[in-house]
Amino acid sequence: MRIALDAMGGDYAPGPIVLGAVQAVQKDAEMRVVLVGDQTQIEPFLASAHAVRDLLEIVHATQVIGMEESPALAFRKKPDNSIMRCWQLLQQKNVEALVSAGNTGAMVAGGFVLRLFLKGVKRPGIAALMPTMTGLSVLLDVGANVHPKPEHLYQYGVMGAIFAKHILQRDKPKIGLLNIGSEEDKGNELAKETSELFRNSPLKDQFIGNIEGRDINKGVCEVIVTDGFVGNVVLKVCEGVFDFVMKVVAKEVMGTLKTEIPLAQQALGNIVKRYDYHELGGAPLLGVDGICIICHGSSKERAIENALHVAAKHARAKLNDLIVSELASGAEPKSPA
Amino acid sequence: MRIALDAMGGDYAPGPIVLGAVQAVQKDAEMRVVLVGDQTQIEPFLASAHAVRDLLEIVHATQVIGMEESPALAFRKKPDNSIMRCWQLLQQKNVEALVSAGNTGAMVAGGFVLRLFLKGVKRPGIAALMPTMTGLSVLLDVGANVHPKPEHLYQYGVMGAIFAKHILQRDKPKIGLLNIGSEEDKGNELAKETSELFRNSPLKDQFIGNIEGRDINKGVCEVIVTDGFVGNVVLKVCEGVFDFVMKVVAKEVMGTLKTEIPLAQQALGNIVKRYDYHELGGAPLLGVDGICIICHGSSKERAIENALHVAAKHARAKLNDLIVSELASGAEPKSPA
Repeated sequence: MRIALDAMGGDYAPGPIVLGAVQAVQKDAEMRVVLVGDQTQIEPFLASAHAVRDLLEIVHATQVIGMEESPALAFRKKPDNSIMRCWQLLQQKNVEALVSAGNTGAMVAGGFVLRLFLKGVKRPGIAALMPTMTGLSVLLDVGANVHPKPEHLYQYGVMGAIFAKHILQRDKPKIGLLNIGSEEDKGNELAKETSELFRNSPLKDQFIGNIEGRDINKGVCEVIVTDGFVGNVVLKVCEGVFDFVMKVVAKEVMGTLKTEIPLAQQALGNIVKRYDYHELGGAPLLGVDGICIICHGSSKERAIENALHVAAKHARAKLNDLIVSELASGAEPKSPA
Repeated sequence: MRIALDAMGGDYAPGPIVLGAVQAVQKDAEMRVVLVGDQTQIEPFLASAHAVRDLLEIVHATQVIGMEESPALAFRKKPDNSIMRCWQLLQQKNVEALVSAGNTGAMVAGGFVLRLFLKGVKRPGIAALMPTMTGLSVLLDVGANVHPKPEHLYQYGVMGAIFAKHILQRDKPKIGLLNIGSEEDKGNELAKETSELFRNSPLKDQFIGNIEGRDINKGVCEVIVTDGFVGNVVLKVCEGVFDFVMKVVAKEVMGTLKTEIPLAQQALGNIVKRYDYHELGGAPLLGVDGICIICHGSSKERAIENALHVAAKHARAKLNDLIVSELASGAEPKSPA
C-alpha cells in the first residue's frame, strides 16, 4: 500500500505533515508513504525516524502552490509543484492514494487536468463527514463542482451511498437532496431536476427526497447531496456555528459553576475533540481513478496520520471498484426528458 | 400605529398568535393590532382581554393557506385567505405593517402579486438576524429570491446596511458577500458579478469582499449578502447545528458534573433563550412598500409579541424612507459591462 503525501501542503507544512507520515507507518505495517516536496526541507524531520525510515520515501518537487493561489495559473507557473507530482505518481500507478492539506482547488484541478476520472464518472465530488445525532453522515459535493448538472448530483448520490455503506458502515444508507423546503416543487431548477432524476432511478427506494438545512445534524439520512457552492458554504457554516456555540457555552457555564469547573472543562474538551475535523481524517475526492484525500489547511500530525489511515481503509475496501461496477450496472437514472 | 397580524398563520394558530397580540398592545400604548382570520376561532382567545379589547380589531377571513401549500395554487383556490387579506390591508394603507408566522412562500408571493415594492427596489429579500461574537448581524436573502441577479444582491447590501445601522444600531456596518473562498475570483458567476458590482459602487468602502461560511458567527461584518437558496439553507443549518451542539453539550456536561448540575442547566437554558429565534422577533421582508415581518412557523405568544414590537420599531425608524432615499441618491453601482 503506497500513498503519496504532499509534504508541502497546508498551513504548517512540512514539519507536522512529515511527522504525521512517520506516525502512520509506525501503526500500519503495510503502509509506505511517498513524501512529495522539497527534499532539503523534508529530511530534517526524518532524522529521528530511523526505525521506519525505509517505509518512507522522498520524491523531490521544487515548487509549492500557495493556499490562495489560482490553480490554473499556479499549474502554468509552477510545473514542478508538489500537488501535480502527487497526481502524476497516482497516474503512473506508483501509488494507490494521495493525501494533501494544500490548496483544495489545485487538488481538484490536478485530477481534472490529467482526466483521472473513474470509468463512468462525469465529475468527481468532495465528500465531507458530518456528525449527526445518529452517527456520521456524508455531505457532497463540498467544493469540487460549483456548477454541477443534475446528473452530477445523481452520481454524488451513488458514490456517497457506497461510501456511507462501506466506509462509514451504515447499512442501506438513505439519500437526501439539500433544498429549501421538503415539498417536491421547492428550490431552484437544479434541485427540481435532480429530485426528478433520483425519483426515476434505481436509487429511488433510498432517496428520501428534499431535506432542509436543519435536518442534516438530526441524521435523517446518511448521504446529503448538494452542489459544490452550497456544500462548501454549509461545511464552513457548521464549523463556524460549532466554534461559536462552544465558546458561548464555555463562557456561560464556566462563569456559573463554582467547584466543578475542571469537570465541565474536561467534558467540553471531549466534545471538541470528538467533532474536530482533525479526527475525521480529511475529505475524499470521490470519482477519481485512485484515492484522493483532501485535508483541512490547518492539519497537523494527528490529522495527517488519520487521513493516511483513511486512505488505506479506502484502498482495502476497494471502494472504486464498487463505484465503477455500480455505475456500470445501470444505476443510471432514466432521464425524465 | 396599526399592524395586521395573520391570526391563522403558523403551527399553533390561532390561540398563541392572538395572545401574542394581546401582550403586545398591553406594552405599547400606540399599537393597534388587526387580527386577520376566522372570527369565530379568534374571539374565544380575546374573552379575557377586556382591558385592551378596543386596541384589537378583527378582520374576518374565511380561508387559511397551509404551511406546505404552493403559494400560486393556494392564492387561486383560496382567494379569501388570511395572508392575502393582510397584504390588502397594507395596500389600502389601513395598516403600516403586517406580521405572519404562516407560509413564508405565500407571504413573499403576496407582496409580489400586488407589486407592493418600494420605489427603486427590484426584488424584496428576507433578512434574518444572526448572532455573532460581536453582536447581531443580518443575513439576506434567506428565501424570497432563489434566482437573484447580481443587482438584486447589491440592493440587499444597500437595504441590509440601512437595517443594520438603524435597527441593530451597528454604526457604519460592513458588508460581506458569502462565497466559497476569500479571493476575488472565487465562486460561481453570481458571486463574481455581484462582487464586481459592490467594488464599483458607492458602498465600496463598506464592502469587505468575499466571506466564508465560518466567518458569519465570528462577526467579521454586520451584513451578509447571499442568494435566497444559499441563505435559506445557511439559516436552517445554523439552527440545526445549534440544536445539535446544545444537545451534545447538555448530555456530556450533565453526565460529568456531580453537585452543580442545576447551575449548568441554568447556564445552558440562558444560552438557548438568548439565541432562540423566538426572542429575535421574526425576519423582515425588506423592499416592500410597508413593513412585513415573517415569523418562524413554530412561533408562540412570545415570538409573535416580539415580532409586533419589531414591526413597530421599523415603522418608527422610518426604515423604508431611508431605503428609498438611499436608492434614489445614486447608491446604484455603475454596471461593469
